Amino acid sequence: MSSKPAKADWIAVDWGTSHLRAWAMAADGSVRDQGQSADGMGRLSPDRFEPALLDLVHGWLGGGPTKVVACGMVGSRQGWTEAPYRAVPCTALDTGLVRAPARDLRLDVRVIPGVKQDSPADVMRGEETQVAGYIAQNPDFDGVLCLPGTHSKWAHISAGEIVSFRTFMTGEMFALLSGQSVLRHSVATEGWDAGAFAAAVSDAIAKPEALAARFFSLRAEALLHDLQGDTARARLSGLLIGAELAAAKPYWLGQDVTLIGASSLTGSYAAALTAQGARPTIANGSAMTLAGLTAAYRSLKDST
Amino acid sequence: MSSKPAKADWIAVDWGTSHLRAWAMAADGSVRDQGQSADGMGRLSPDRFEPALLDLVHGWLGGGPTKVVACGMVGSRQGWTEAPYRAVPCTALDTGLVRAPARDLRLDVRVIPGVKQDSPADVMRGEETQVAGYIAQNPDFDGVLCLPGTHSKWAHISAGEIVSFRTFMTGEMFALLSGQSVLRHSVATEGWDAGAFAAAVSDAIAKPEALAARFFSLRAEALLHDLQGDTARARLSGLLIGAELAAAKPYWLGQDVTLIGASSLTGSYAAALTAQGARPTIANGSAMTLAGLTAAYRSLKDST
Repeated sequence: MSSKPAKADWIAVDWGTSHLRAWAMAADGSVRDQGQSADGMGRLSPDRFEPALLDLVHGWLGGGPTKVVACGMVGSRQGWTEAPYRAVPCTALDTGLVRAPARDLRLDVRVIPGVKQDSPADVMRGEETQVAGYIAQNPDFDGVLCLPGTHSKWAHISAGEIVSFRTFMTGEMFALLSGQSVLRHSVATEGWDAGAFAAAVSDAIAKPEALAARFFSLRAEALLHDLQGDTARARLSGLLIGAELAAAKPYWLGQDVTLIGASSLTGSYAAALTAQGARPTIANGSAMTLAGLTAAYRSLKDST
Repeated sequence: MSSKPAKADWIAVDWGTSHLRAWAMAADGSVRDQGQSADGMGRLSPDRFEPALLDLVHGWLGGGPTKVVACGMVGSRQGWTEAPYRAVPCTALDTGLVRAPARDLRLDVRVIPGVKQDSPADVMRGEETQVAGYIAQNPDFDGVLCLPGTHSKWAHISAGEIVSFRTFMTGEMFALLSGQSVLRHSVATEGWDAGAFAAAVSDAIAKPEALAARFFSLRAEALLHDLQGDTARARLSGLLIGAELAAAKPYWLGQDVTLIGASSLTGSYAAALTAQGARPTIANGSAMTLAGLTAAYRSLKDST
């Protein structure tokens, strides 16, 4: 028995390089329906954003215009419409959303700008919305948010503002090394060895410059000493995360740290940080995205 | 006007993962002809090695068997025949070459074994032949050989032996990051900026743990400050080579260092090392391969 799709009071959209996720929202912030597709920004030409969105949300639309609040790479120069970066220090949330040029009168699309830092040069698109969601739920938070992922972010938060941040290409390096380098023969695509992970984190923090040699050792140990693929996988992850922690030390040492992201990844970062004496808390990444989009929708409603 | 191909007294072969190079040699060690193809070990099943070799060298063969001396990945487990690693400390050259199972009676193929190190686990295949070539030409050398490349090697040489060595995945990381990561949008495929390279080497040596953040800065500086592609390319190379130098310091500090490789790469390493106060000398990579294969051929002749 099929049911009529729920209408949305407004629509929340997380639109990254490789994914498109949408939620049919009620005015009170509850979720009526959700959907996703592989129509990420990376595969869409400018004129394909609107059809890709309609494919996913058309059943949620009523007769009049529905507000759609979107974050992520959809607002980049190669996206649907460019939502220029705001510069730190700044609030995570801004009322200056940018309207995307939708032709369908049922769509009123607003895109959340990314955040930039001039020096050291850095940018984020999408993570600022997760930060805004966390701050909306924890308005008095003063500390550091770490958002592990393809491009992990560490952001210093004070008085409701993003003070500074730094991006590490940790996740992308893991994907390239484990999937496309000579290590692909030695690193399993799944499986885990918590002890090997912890030891590698500790090795990398002690001697982070040796990374490129330790990477090759994984291949050599597989050839010479039958290193198992799941152990190699955990060790490669530990080396990369350990090097990130070594560099990000000013962010986490003696600070209140909250990890925001998918549970497998935040779990690894939490284990690594805990071994260094930090006591991170964890927040769910999707929940923070939705909380940030909701906060942006409310600010929009207040300002119009 | 075509000329009759030169016959070879013996054939030297450098057979890596992605290339096959062969030289028609005279008994006195001079080169009569040479050829190459893309039939690297990586694309050949075990039964395709002999045809791939014959394609390249058949014109050089006489009626009787011709000795072929080969180094590189052809001797790996996935190669034509496995030539098991010898363990350091060991001479760079060994008389224990492994015969490959050629059916054509005109071919008498011998494969040079690679070299392994148990701890830290490490392996080389092909570079030991370049080391042997260098030692053949410089029998009293006591110091360090650096062989930059996809997997850069640093080898400590004393009394004609490889005492220890270490491999860094520097070249492969450069290729993956510049060609397949988010940095591909910001890093040019050619062009150079010597000042940016030197500054990046120095930055990486001072703070090698910050690599993954400095990588992303190249993208952010391109977006925010119009960083040029050739500058980004030189800086990415400098960051990776600088991190390698930081880790390899025990190898080069206060040592006689010779760089063996292609001139573009040895030039970059020489610039980086010179800025650190070292005074490296440079030897040509292909010439050292050929010298090593020649030394192996002579030892073979002496022993049979």
